Order: sequence, then structure tokens, then C-alpha cells
Amino acid sequence: MTIEKALVVGTGLIGTSAALALRARGVEVWLSDIDEHAVTQARDLGAGWEWPGGEVDLAVIAVPPHLVGERLAELQKQGAARAYTDVASVKADPIADAERLGCDLISYVPGHPLAGRERSGPAAARAELFRGRAWALCPGPATGADALALVRELVSLCGAKVVTVGAAEHDAAVALVSHAPHVAASAVAASLTGGDDVALSLAGQGLRDVTRIAAGNPLLWQRILAGNALPVAEVLDRIAADLAAAAAALRSGEQAEVTDLLRRGVDGQARIS
Amino acid sequence: MTIEKALVVGTGLIGTSAALALRARGVEVWLSDIDEHAVTQARDLGAGWEWPGGEVDLAVIAVPPHLVGERLAELQKQGAARAYTDVASVKADPIADAERLGCDLISYVPGHPLAGRERSGPAAARAELFRGRAWALCPGPATGADALALVRELVSLCGAKVVTVGAAEHDAAVALVSHAPHVAASAVAASLTGGDDVALSLAGQGLRDVTRIAAGNPLLWQRILAGNALPVAEVLDRIAADLAAAAAALRSGEQAEVTDLLRRGVDGQARIS
Repeated sequence: MTIEKALVVGTGLIGTSAALALRARGVEVWLSDIDEHAVTQARDLGAGWEWPGGEVDLAVIAVPPHLVGERLAELQKQGAARAYTDVASVKADPIADAERLGCDLISYVPGHPLAGRERSGPAAARAELFRGRAWALCPGPATGADALALVRELVSLCGAKVVTVGAAEHDAAVALVSHAPHVAASAVAASLTGGDDVALSLAGQGLRDVTRIAAGNPLLWQRILAGNALPVAEVLDRIAADLAAAAAALRSGEQAEVTDLLRRGVDGQARIS
Repeated sequence: MTIEKALVVGTGLIGTSAALALRARGVEVWLSDIDEHAVTQARDLGAGWEWPGGEVDLAVIAVPPHLVGERLAELQKQGAARAYTDVASVKADPIADAERLGCDLISYVPGHPLAGRERSGPAAARAELFRGRAWALCPGPATGADALALVRELVSLCGAKVVTVGAAEHDAAVALVSHAPHVAASAVAASLTGGDDVALSLAGQGLRDVTRIAAGNPLLWQRILAGNALPVAEVLDRIAADLAAAAAALRSGEQAEVTDLLRRGVDGQARIS
């Protein structure tokens, strides 16, 4: 039960990074993408070779969330691999798509590496992208032990740590720790568009840190958010309510309410530091 | 017109860091704080020696914003220095206090180094804290050229870059680039207090960056925000409105509105990157 041959479908940032990590560990890696230029770029970076077809041990489906089910169905019809996983940052929708399309759920282990960069595309890929990071796996009741073992090996070869979690729980969790924070960073960054040059010359490292992730690809993020809309909306409503209440408290001089928010912020930050 | 002797009043993070920077450039530095322990700590770090009284070239008043005017009046009554500056992160209120208390405005140059850390107190101080950072100066119509030259020399000795700006413009600017982003980071961090351990185990570098500054001292920040309440409230209202609108758009499936916010975020982030 070992990954000797892998197929990476979708050679963007995440797919190419996984391919590079596997290559670095001696795995034979094949590449596929609807964009031929992306495959060529990934190949030239040493991520593997254009896939001519044929069976591999594990297929890593690294396409946007709304395309995962479709691509899984195609690959399974071709008998491309013994096991399949994806890397989409939402899990309930792709799993529902796979079920609807009649995919084999025994050989499919839904996954999501918690790693990324503001830049996208194969040129931004790095073999070390996943090192030390969490990699969520959401096996369902039908998931086979062999497939799960192969996907756990993928995570290990990439230097990441498996976090096993249900799909709905995963989506609520990433709404809280990734998707809503991204929108909040975007809203802070968006407020800067109204500032003049002198104001922005006073920006320090704190603001740069808060807004760094807001540089991410808007279309990619719009799709991620649309695929996890309700959990994200719930968190955003809480953050928006806290900020509106803080603004009102500042206007009316109710210092205690502002201090309470700042204290809750210290407590929340301490949970991830 | 050179700083040979300086006095630092208030040996917290900023005061002690300025003292260390001046010491590293050969300036004779004297220290004062209402907390004797803080002075001893700063002295033991090599920041200077307990001030026995007597005149210096420049006094740096590094106390909380609401105490700047009072401390300036006392020091001027003692004839402590040829020129005075402060480092408070708001400027309109301290200047109004100084006017109200009848301070000499010729020898006072209001200032604000855009640098900080999440930790406070002299033990967190570093001589390099200001290196490459902006340092706002808000001279008024009464400010004397000699005082301004001495304070510009202070900024230069600390390795920072002078940004000259009016006090009201400064306060609106820091509301935008520092104070409101701090509250937004606090609100995102506060939302994490409701997350379970599995959810928080999925937190990545992005969330850590967004929430890093939320670890700052709540009482210190409450005072900063109270001293700049209206400009901060205005920015917070805009951010809260953007987040509430994004939540509503996600619920109703209006993708274009979400994409628009993400795009504005990319534009705003680009202005400080």
C-alpha cells in the first residue's frame, strides 16, 4: 500500500506544490490540466510529466470546488487510479456532487490542505507549501480503508498533519478560521481605497499583516465563498455586529463595550498563538 | 543644533526604544517614569540613567495620550529642555490639552512614530523599533524652527522617516491605517472564542497574520481609540457595512457584490504593498 505513481489533475498553486512535494520524495508524478500552458509550466518546474493516460496509485484532484465531482466522475470512468482525493477548501458541496454523479465513494477521500499563498498558478508553487500545516480529511461512512491509507500517505509525504473531521464540521470550521477572515481582511483593505497618499504613508506592519490575504484572486475566492455561503455569512454577521457596536460605543463614549471587544480579541488570538 | 543630551519621560516600549536608539548613536540619555521599576528596568537595559533634573536639548514625552499635555506643562515649568516632542498615537487631543494648559507651543513639536509591538513595557523595547518606519510630525503655526530641527534629528537618529502632516489629517489617517484595522483584527479574533479545538486546529498563517495585532494590550488600545473616537467610528462603520452586505449577498447568492468587495480589497491592499 504505497504511492509509487500519482496523478495530479489541475496544476495550479496547490496541485503543482503537491506534485513537487511528491517528486521530492521519489514518487512518479503525472500531470493533467485543461490549460496546456499550466501543465507545461508545471513540468518545466520539475513537477512531473504530461499524463498519457494509464492507472496510478493515487489521483489528486486540484481543481476549483465546483468542478471536483465532475472531474472525479470522469477519472473514475477511465479507471485512472486506485484512490482519489481532492484539495478543495469546501467539502460538503463537492461530496454532494460526487454522490449525485454516482461516483464510487469507496475510493474517494475528500481532503483540504490548509495552505496557500496570495499568488496562484504553477509558478507560485513550492514543494514545502504544506510542511507543518494541517490537512483536513473528511472520510465518510463509505470510504474504504485502502483509499484512506493512501491519502494519509500523501499528507505525510507532503510534510503535513492529518486532521480528521466531518464535512459539515469542516465547512463551519474553515468559515470561521479562513473564509470569513479573508472577507474581513478584504473589507479592511477596501477601506484604504478612500485614503490619500499621506494617510497610506503612515501604514505600518500591523496593517500589512491584517490585509495581506486580501491580495488573493477575487474570482477564486468568490467561488470558495459561494461554496460555503451560509457558514461564512453567519461568521461575517457576528464580526459586522461587533464592529458596528464598537463604532456606536466610541461615538457615545461607552468605553467598557470597546474594552470588552478588545479583551475578547486577546482571548481569541491566544487560542491560535 | 544637535542633540547631545535627551530626556525620555515614560520608559515603556516606545520611550525605552527611543532611548536605546539614541544611546546607540552616542546621545547622553536621561530617564524618568512615575513607575520607578520601569526606570530601573530601562536603565538596566542600557537605555540611560535616572534623571536627576537639569536641562537637556530634547525631551521625549512617551506617556499615554491623555497625559501628554499635563506632562509637557510640568516639564516646561521646570525648564527641562530646549525642545519637546511626544509620541502619542493621536495628535488633536494632546495639542488641545497643551493649548488649554498654556504650554509654550514654540518649543513643542507633536510627533508619532508608526511603530509598535504586541508586547508593552521596557523589556519589549528595541533600538531598531523605528528603523525604516514612518514618524509623523505635526508642527503647528506656532512651532519654532529650532525645535523642529531637533525633533527631525531625533527621527533621523532613530532611523525613521519624517512624514509632516496636520494634526486632524494625522488622526483621520491613523484611524484608517491603524486604529480601525486594530478593532477589525480584534473582532475577527473575538469570533474565534466560539470555535472548538478541531476548528482552531485548521487555522493557518493567514488567520494568524490577520489577528496578530489583536494581542495588543486592551487598556492601552481602549485609551488610544477613545482619543480618536469619531474618525475610528467612521471607518468601522464602513467596514461593518461592507461585511454585513457581503453576508447578505452570500445568503441571497448575489455573487457580483461579493466579487466587488474582494476586488476593492485587492486594490486597497495594492496601495500599501
